[in-house]
Amino acid sequence: MAKVRALVLERQHELSMRDIDLPQDVRPGEVKIKIHTVGVCGSDVHYYTHGRIGPFVVNAPMVLGHEAAGTVVEVGEGVTHLKVGDRVCMEPGIPDPNSRASRLGLYNIDPAVTFWATPPIHGVLTPYVVHPANYTFKLPDNVSFAEGAMVEPFAVGMQAATKAKIVPGDTAVVLGAGPIGTMVAIAALAGGCARAIVADLAQPKLDIAAGYQGVIPVNNREKNLAEEVKRLTDGWGADIVFECSGSPKAWESLLDLPRPGGVVVAVGLPVAPIPFDVSTASTREIRIETVFRYAHQYDRAIALMASGRVDLKPLISATFPFEESIVAFDRAVEARPADVKLQISLAE
Amino acid sequence: MAKVRALVLERQHELSMRDIDLPQDVRPGEVKIKIHTVGVCGSDVHYYTHGRIGPFVVNAPMVLGHEAAGTVVEVGEGVTHLKVGDRVCMEPGIPDPNSRASRLGLYNIDPAVTFWATPPIHGVLTPYVVHPANYTFKLPDNVSFAEGAMVEPFAVGMQAATKAKIVPGDTAVVLGAGPIGTMVAIAALAGGCARAIVADLAQPKLDIAAGYQGVIPVNNREKNLAEEVKRLTDGWGADIVFECSGSPKAWESLLDLPRPGGVVVAVGLPVAPIPFDVSTASTREIRIETVFRYAHQYDRAIALMASGRVDLKPLISATFPFEESIVAFDRAVEARPADVKLQISLAE
Amino acid sequence: MAKVRALVLERQHELSMRDIDLPQDVRPGEVKIKIHTVGVCGSDVHYYTHGRIGPFVVNAPMVLGHEAAGTVVEVGEGVTHLKVGDRVCMEPGIPDPNSRASRLGLYNIDPAVTFWATPPIHGVLTPYVVHPANYTFKLPDNVSFAEGAMVEPFAVGMQAATKAKIVPGDTAVVLGAGPIGTMVAIAALAGGCARAIVADLAQPKLDIAAGYQGVIPVNNREKNLAEEVKRLTDGWGADIVFECSGSPKAWESLLDLPRPGGVVVAVGLPVAPIPFDVSTASTREIRIETVFRYAHQYDRAIALMASGRVDLKPLISATFPFEESIVAFDRAVEARPADVKLQISLAE
Amino acid sequence: MAKVRALVLERQHELSMRDIDLPQDVRPGEVKIKIHTVGVCGSDVHYYTHGRIGPFVVNAPMVLGHEAAGTVVEVGEGVTHLKVGDRVCMEPGIPDPNSRASRLGLYNIDPAVTFWATPPIHGVLTPYVVHPANYTFKLPDNVSFAEGAMVEPFAVGMQAATKAKIVPGDTAVVLGAGPIGTMVAIAALAGGCARAIVADLAQPKLDIAAGYQGVIPVNNREKNLAEEVKRLTDGWGADIVFECSGSPKAWESLLDLPRPGGVVVAVGLPVAPIPFDVSTASTREIRIETVFRYAHQYDRAIALMASGRVDLKPLISATFPFEESIVAFDRAVEARPADVKLQISLAE
Repeated sequence: MAKVRALVLERQHELSMRDIDLPQDVRPGEVKIKIHTVGVCGSDVHYYTHGRIGPFVVNAPMVLGHEAAGTVVEVGEGVTHLKVGDRVCMEPGIPDPNSRASRLGLYNIDPAVTFWATPPIHGVLTPYVVHPANYTFKLPDNVSFAEGAMVEPFAVGMQAATKAKIVPGDTAVVLGAGPIGTMVAIAALAGGCARAIVADLAQPKLDIAAGYQGVIPVNNREKNLAEEVKRLTDGWGADIVFECSGSPKAWESLLDLPRPGGVVVAVGLPVAPIPFDVSTASTREIRIETVFRYAHQYDRAIALMASGRVDLKPLISATFPFEESIVAFDRAVEARPADVKLQISLAE
Repeated sequence: MAKVRALVLERQHELSMRDIDLPQDVRPGEVKIKIHTVGVCGSDVHYYTHGRIGPFVVNAPMVLGHEAAGTVVEVGEGVTHLKVGDRVCMEPGIPDPNSRASRLGLYNIDPAVTFWATPPIHGVLTPYVVHPANYTFKLPDNVSFAEGAMVEPFAVGMQAATKAKIVPGDTAVVLGAGPIGTMVAIAALAGGCARAIVADLAQPKLDIAAGYQGVIPVNNREKNLAEEVKRLTDGWGADIVFECSGSPKAWESLLDLPRPGGVVVAVGLPVAPIPFDVSTASTREIRIETVFRYAHQYDRAIALMASGRVDLKPLISATFPFEESIVAFDRAVEARPADVKLQISLAE
Repeated sequence: MAKVRALVLERQHELSMRDIDLPQDVRPGEVKIKIHTVGVCGSDVHYYTHGRIGPFVVNAPMVLGHEAAGTVVEVGEGVTHLKVGDRVCMEPGIPDPNSRASRLGLYNIDPAVTFWATPPIHGVLTPYVVHPANYTFKLPDNVSFAEGAMVEPFAVGMQAATKAKIVPGDTAVVLGAGPIGTMVAIAALAGGCARAIVADLAQPKLDIAAGYQGVIPVNNREKNLAEEVKRLTDGWGADIVFECSGSPKAWESLLDLPRPGGVVVAVGLPVAPIPFDVSTASTREIRIETVFRYAHQYDRAIALMASGRVDLKPLISATFPFEESIVAFDRAVEARPADVKLQISLAE
Repeated sequence: MAKVRALVLERQHELSMRDIDLPQDVRPGEVKIKIHTVGVCGSDVHYYTHGRIGPFVVNAPMVLGHEAAGTVVEVGEGVTHLKVGDRVCMEPGIPDPNSRASRLGLYNIDPAVTFWATPPIHGVLTPYVVHPANYTFKLPDNVSFAEGAMVEPFAVGMQAATKAKIVPGDTAVVLGAGPIGTMVAIAALAGGCARAIVADLAQPKLDIAAGYQGVIPVNNREKNLAEEVKRLTDGWGADIVFECSGSPKAWESLLDLPRPGGVVVAVGLPVAPIPFDVSTASTREIRIETVFRYAHQYDRAIALMASGRVDLKPLISATFPFEESIVAFDRAVEARPADVKLQISLAE
């Protein structure tokens, strides 16, 4: 343990930049990383504004931040795939490798997983972090730290795209053009969809998504989505519907969108149960997939960014210096429609 | 067309045995079948008691019956896999082979499908029926007509088992021990499950299901199902949950049952939307599958019965002669707990 | 039947432009198409140079050409999704919709399928053709006739990409950079791969493939492919290996390339059995997929081209007028390394 | 380490019962097991007769035996799912939980795996063994030690059945009725097949397999297998072909057996590459799966045995006391056709 500077959520509504005790020693199988860039995630902001997310309650001061990239500065015993100086990004969740879920390859749904900036686990808005090497990934030379810090939110999109079991050339609908919806649309296209019909009420969000080849933006205020989908698919329906709004209202008319035998991937999380019409879903044998964070997506996400097939730089709306982290969070609270991702840089 | 005797549902609550005009001519690709046995299905009974099922309304007299077996008596031009004298059973649904769904192999969800005893299509409680040869299946010598007439309801169970994507040795939970739940349990076991934990409130139904090797009956009045599942799976949960009750109440606690990464197959159809907790389902990445009738299951069902691996004879509770069809239906309306399947025999 | 002008393969080594009797009447469910562009395929050329492909022997004069696009000029009874004036491309294979394979959705492996320019079926290097509407696909306004005639060879790539069951972000190796290898690489990338390591001996072919984002060319004369794959995948291996060379030699070292649990998709067809090391494949549980033409790929291919995610125009090396068809074929026989696709235009 | 009695393979052709140094201390996460029953596996016998299997060479004395069941006598720190007195069976392979393959759930193909009685790792024909608790499985009361020692070979069959992706009601062909072929047939049937057509030249082996419901024995000396399969499947072919003979000859005519779109699972390992006809396989889009040992099969195998759906007791041909282990091995070398599994009991 050592006193280090960090962005600390003291309690709901109260952030401070201050020193706090954090572990800095490197054990076997671990690496120490000098943090370069950290993205501000909706969940970080939600802990700030609400003090909790579902069962996770901020009962003690907690360092925020979990979308991070940096440089390896120390390498623990037994680590072979990383060396000092490697530019890296990190998975924020650490599972128990011996749990039943992990052994099956489903480490994201291991109940024992700990996750940065999810109470009571500290996040990484602090200059250094110690992390298992297995969950630390080397960035290729052509992937910047800023992009490296985008791997975490993009991995959510990748998990959704993977669960959808895309068949090459599929047509997707994405409900919601917020950061997650946009990431999902990009991942769905990179993952094999021919086109992603992205629907939202906010035109600035749609304009950003529409910058990606294959995105067909639909403003729900102007057009009836179900009719648009029918028109674009000759009345057949979409192969995949990604629900990314988390809105119970979205679920009301969702089943008008998929084709017979299509799939709905629930990415957005409504706070309460939504009404689901089993009979209508059954008539067309619709499948529903759910996702929880991600597993085995970091190397895939990095490969897509390195090959140039996925460019997330247009989604970085603004970057703040570490000492202005609170300013960054207050801007995130504003939720400006054209802000997709705010980042904090710890580089000198 | 010719006048033939049939069990006719004149309107809600009114059945009659009488002559009615039905097509008897055999066109190319068709066969004419002398009906031997017809099972009484819950949907037949529901049209009798309610005059409708969802959007399907009995607006004109309709012959009932769609679970049928018989003998080929005439073979149309171009039919090569059947000959006069073959003992057969028939799929009651006829799709358009050129529809988009059919071409993909999803003929059960072809919107153009017509289905026996679904208004305005006549059923087969009548001595002869003309049917496409492609949807007529030869019965092996060791499968009786009575068993042949069980292929249709068993195919529903097979479709559910297929959609579950069973991995050999899976543990299933089946909610509801009515005819469909029991068929699903048998199909799940035949389809690779090691055991099927079947839950119901009615002990006589559970007793019948428990006659099948691998079924673990749980009476919901006596035991907490979620605790039983946890106990039987070392706290891990079931690989597959088949919801066969159609009860909204079942959906309330359903998500306590599957393991992380497990699947729920919705077989029962609640009449109204049910509350579905997307967030809880997501925490364990539960998948939901829905089923609509069946496709490509008849030859598989028959193969399982022919090999002796599936024995449906214990589910045939009583058999009535054709002229007592109305008696059979009135007994079905009683819904005696120990009655799984009532059949009507047209054999002389 | 009517006398119409066509490119006729009279027998091995002998082509002529002449009149021949071809059906021109439109039956129910069919459309008549004025042909605009036809691509020259390796199989057309092979019939010209060898007079046969495997069991298919040219025993009578046969019109060549099966990669075609054109305009609907007449619409048969019952056709609803097409109208006169629609720009279209066509699947050259016509299955029996009532065969067992077709009903399962596997119409490409229906033994009863007939296929343009496969003896004794005539191809479409002729001004008009009559075809089933179900296998005729409307081209969007932004997809040209030339691109429409590329859908057929691209569909082969799409079938391979589909059979691979790509997981988003996969790394593929493509052995062979001929027309098929290049199509497969493009389809694999469009279908979700992060990168396609394309290997060949001919640098001009690699240069064309390398024009596509995500392609990593490897000249086998200069580098050891297995070492390159290891280097690019941190010693893990490729998720997918597409064998597109058809060379027995390629199979000798193929198993050095895939990762544990990876897949090999055999696209190229060696003329004789190749030696396959089951034990080595088993050590890493390698899966082998094979492909035969394609099924359900045309609309997907067209959607990828319409969205701009797939651009096949760079692969069209030269276009010849219809009357110079024999010149086009003689150039194809030369097999210039930089010639990917030669096309013949029938437009006035 | 401690001196303990064991069956030691000194070198090729030389077995001895003697004391040898083996680890007996229990570390965290481990359990110590008193061995009760050990099966004699073909690989144990092969090391005895040949001194090697492929790259694995017996260069030093090695204890044999890896199919084992016993009783927990000591429990290491942190082990929660086992306690002293539990009857158990054990997976003989121990992977590195942090390897890339293990994290993906593919621990059987982790190159770092160590495996009992595979040089230089000692086996368990010795009174006590220390083992990771994670790879030690509790036996239900109704599964005997003898059956527990059958879980290992049965897991091979389960892995093959899992890789086949059986659809309920599939028809399988099993080539070879030796111990592995028989295990595969039983697993395929338990895993969802309606019937398994088992082919061999040795009638005593076929007679044993035929004792299982759903097995259709075919003696290759008496009948043409391809014709039998065609007859039994109306000319369509088998959904799945399990090659369990390891014979190059079997591969020559293998492709006559599967249906269009079917799968071949290679279980037997030919010593040299076999000729494989890619073109013929492609014509019907045949898929080839390979298997290596097993992963995640023990609990599934045990569940099938506990439910009574799988009974392996008929396969235990004889049981020898520990002190007669060499007699058991010499009988195994005889390879009597009716000997499926010989076991050695260490119980007093």
